[in-house]
Amino acid sequence: MANHFRLLLIITLLFIIVFSTISSPSNGSPLSSSSSSVLSKRLPRFPRHTFKNPTRIQRFRGDGSGYKYETKFFSQQLDHFSFADLPKFSQRYLINSDHWLGASALGPIFLYCGNEGDIEWFATNSGFLWEIAPKFGALLVFPEHRYYGESMPYGSREEAYKNATTLSYLTTEQALADFAVFVTDLKRNLSAEACPVVLFGGSYGGMLAAWMRLKYPHIAIGALASSAPILQFEDIVPPETFYDIVSNDFMRESSSCFNTIKNSWDAIIAEGQKENGLQQLAKTFHFCRVLNSTDDLSDWLDSAYSYLAMVNYPYPANFMMPLPGHPIKEVCRKIDGASSDASILDRIFAGISVYYNYTGDVDCFELDDDPHGLDGWNWQACTEMVMPMSSSEENSMFPAYAFNYSSYKDECWNTFRVNPRPRWVTTELGGHDIETTLKSFGSNIIFSNGLLDPWSGGSVLKNLSNTIVALVTQEGGHHLDLRPSTPEDPKWLVEQREAEIRLIQGWIRTYRLEKEAQFSLLKRSW
Amino acid sequence: MANHFRLLLIITLLFIIVFSTISSPSNGSPLSSSSSSVLSKRLPRFPRHTFKNPTRIQRFRGDGSGYKYETKFFSQQLDHFSFADLPKFSQRYLINSDHWLGASALGPIFLYCGNEGDIEWFATNSGFLWEIAPKFGALLVFPEHRYYGESMPYGSREEAYKNATTLSYLTTEQALADFAVFVTDLKRNLSAEACPVVLFGGSYGGMLAAWMRLKYPHIAIGALASSAPILQFEDIVPPETFYDIVSNDFMRESSSCFNTIKNSWDAIIAEGQKENGLQQLAKTFHFCRVLNSTDDLSDWLDSAYSYLAMVNYPYPANFMMPLPGHPIKEVCRKIDGASSDASILDRIFAGISVYYNYTGDVDCFELDDDPHGLDGWNWQACTEMVMPMSSSEENSMFPAYAFNYSSYKDECWNTFRVNPRPRWVTTELGGHDIETTLKSFGSNIIFSNGLLDPWSGGSVLKNLSNTIVALVTQEGGHHLDLRPSTPEDPKWLVEQREAEIRLIQGWIRTYRLEKEAQFSLLKRSW
Repeated sequence: MANHFRLLLIITLLFIIVFSTISSPSNGSPLSSSSSSVLSKRLPRFPRHTFKNPTRIQRFRGDGSGYKYETKFFSQQLDHFSFADLPKFSQRYLINSDHWLGASALGPIFLYCGNEGDIEWFATNSGFLWEIAPKFGALLVFPEHRYYGESMPYGSREEAYKNATTLSYLTTEQALADFAVFVTDLKRNLSAEACPVVLFGGSYGGMLAAWMRLKYPHIAIGALASSAPILQFEDIVPPETFYDIVSNDFMRESSSCFNTIKNSWDAIIAEGQKENGLQQLAKTFHFCRVLNSTDDLSDWLDSAYSYLAMVNYPYPANFMMPLPGHPIKEVCRKIDGASSDASILDRIFAGISVYYNYTGDVDCFELDDDPHGLDGWNWQACTEMVMPMSSSEENSMFPAYAFNYSSYKDECWNTFRVNPRPRWVTTELGGHDIETTLKSFGSNIIFSNGLLDPWSGGSVLKNLSNTIVALVTQEGGHHLDLRPSTPEDPKWLVEQREAEIRLIQGWIRTYRLEKEAQFSLLKRSW
Repeated sequence: MANHFRLLLIITLLFIIVFSTISSPSNGSPLSSSSSSVLSKRLPRFPRHTFKNPTRIQRFRGDGSGYKYETKFFSQQLDHFSFADLPKFSQRYLINSDHWLGASALGPIFLYCGNEGDIEWFATNSGFLWEIAPKFGALLVFPEHRYYGESMPYGSREEAYKNATTLSYLTTEQALADFAVFVTDLKRNLSAEACPVVLFGGSYGGMLAAWMRLKYPHIAIGALASSAPILQFEDIVPPETFYDIVSNDFMRESSSCFNTIKNSWDAIIAEGQKENGLQQLAKTFHFCRVLNSTDDLSDWLDSAYSYLAMVNYPYPANFMMPLPGHPIKEVCRKIDGASSDASILDRIFAGISVYYNYTGDVDCFELDDDPHGLDGWNWQACTEMVMPMSSSEENSMFPAYAFNYSSYKDECWNTFRVNPRPRWVTTELGGHDIETTLKSFGSNIIFSNGLLDPWSGGSVLKNLSNTIVALVTQEGGHHLDLRPSTPEDPKWLVEQREAEIRLIQGWIRTYRLEKEAQFSLLKRSW
């Protein structure tokens, strides 16, 4: 367990160093990334890390996480689905074969479907895989998602993100095909064609894992899709779902906390409209620079509340930020517990500091100049990953907001010069009436979710068949099951992971029996 | 039944008219289409029609086939899998709703997956769908495959086939996505979102139907994939399979017929090497022009034998050519029955005339100047549809030939300036060890095959699960089951079609029960 604490320490240090050296967002792109935008309204994101300097990560690799891996590159088609003459690109992947049983023993291959970010971050935050690999005798591979981390088409991030044409191959289907081509080639090189592949992923990576099992059953025998909101499209779930769950996470801790937050938005606007109001707000909230508008502050708060709901873990963790266990409880304790003469905004500041400054090391807060600018996930949200998000008048502690596709589309055009295809994901990957579709089609998928996670509302929360199952925990957060085990793990979390292990063992056992039966049949026919 | 004979007559007339007006293959293309090529060696094709003048078809539409339909167009993405700014194109589809039960009754939609040719030809040669539509109360739709018929990107065939860049979107995955987008939109427009879609297809269309059911289970509840050689890739089946089956079709009729053909190739070469040998060959075989080489003749014969094996139907039919029932028996009767002093080449000519001139109307035979030139299927064969074909020394009546990927690749480069991706189909669509993959994944596919059809060797010939089943007939030819019924249908063919109908009825019944259960559950929860 000492390793985990060392890990915590290293990551904390790492955050401090990286944050103090973060460069500003990419400049010089012909794409517009200037204005705060409609995209920034109600575009919740999956958790992501903010490392922007790979050499920093490099320095720390392998000297603290306890996870050792080789870093390799694979030459990949830029467009799998056309034969246009395009340059290939190098896809990065991490690999560890320390525990692999090998090809002749049909040793399994665990493939983590890289999400929208640096694969090293996802690999080192998916302790579950590292912990179960020895038990399974599994090879671990973590292929990176194209257009993220070091897997950049056209040779550099700058070139890859240059315009809508260079970005046009940043799609989910291409990423899935990358994984398929990659692992097929890897298996061939290892003479491991017969080895079973099991997919893992959390968040968008979990969506990829589930979709990949459905689209490439010949490549992977099953998938653990953790916190994978594959139903968060079109009108499959109500658009208020996400913010209602965030809000409920606060309400269940304290209704006065919920009400303070709900009332704070008007207070912020009122304050901002006063003379020198923006300066005053910057002072109250300890920003390093003045605000351009009250939206800067609202976005900063909205973002923190949403992330808090995702990482509302039952023990102290350092996933996006160093946080105490049950951080929302802590936030509400601060909001509710401020001295009786504290203003509403003082209370909010006290609460939000739990998220942004739990270590107490921050003197003043930097505002992200372009929180929803030219990054890969925004491109994906502006093309395929159109997830309508509204905030309801009644149940939400956020300002009421109705998703407006027309402004969303305009904003995507202004930012990227691209038109979304909001119906494409459900056409290509399904989602509507998933029960009827998967009741008698497909097998071996685990949808794991914690109901505190706002993304759980767009996920699969009940068994669809005997082998497409839902593991739901009342108190779980965003892909908590994929994180390393800790001494503080509650019983339900330990049991959830055990259930996952049993199911995966079952998939592998069935697969091997099948293979052995074929082999003995073959022998008999000789 | 009178309709069928009228149809036969019309098609015969049509062939005569079209053949007498056929224009030469497309000229002026920057792509090389000059030389007879390695592609022309051992590149068997699926049956195709040879209409090249749409106005000719137009004239005959609806006045003979007995199949009435509306012709419509749908605006389609050129590249579904990237967001490059590309022009849309018009996809043609045929539709008939005469018997449709309608949306509220969950009337089924039968979708024929258009193959590599004019959709009207496939629609009018798929009588099975037209015959069962009234029984099922089904809507019939026949979307055309992109880059064929009138569904041309870039506005015209000439532009679409201009070069490797314009052709680059002619892929199977794009065609499947076309069908998915098309039928999703169609259902929305008809408020028929809940209506079950059943897929049909023969030959390459059958491959598309099977693949579409596997890739788009949320869009179609099942597929009848007739004569669909989805395993004819890489080394899944031996490369000799196709020609061995063709050869066996002749052997089973007569070993002397088989031997005459097997010996004829050397005789042709020997004749060609004589002084004026090519002229003499042209005379013996009644060609309208002199041969450039003996390959012209060998290809012409190879092609006829292969097609004869595919359309070796048990009753007279006019699918590619007007032919008697059991045409191979007839060919062998001519080869074996020639006068005892007939030369080997005279015997071959007598036999092959059954195929090329059964009506006796042809004075001299035109050689296709470019049988394997710049057409869409050749592009597909040079990109994704790489089906290795060899001819064995022992079992084949064709000249021995070992598939050579390197020359194949070179020839594709010379013809299209494109490199094949021979492993892509199995990576994207599966094939290796299909039994293990589909034993517990997927449902509702019928693989129907006749063992006389040389493509049956690369098809699924046994049940993979309770619901992915093989219907195999000993005496069937290439997608015979999809053809209209005739008074001469043998019992096994009638039974095969009945089995197909029962299975499809089962899929629809199960789907409707599922929907009703959901609906009453919904009602109860109100």
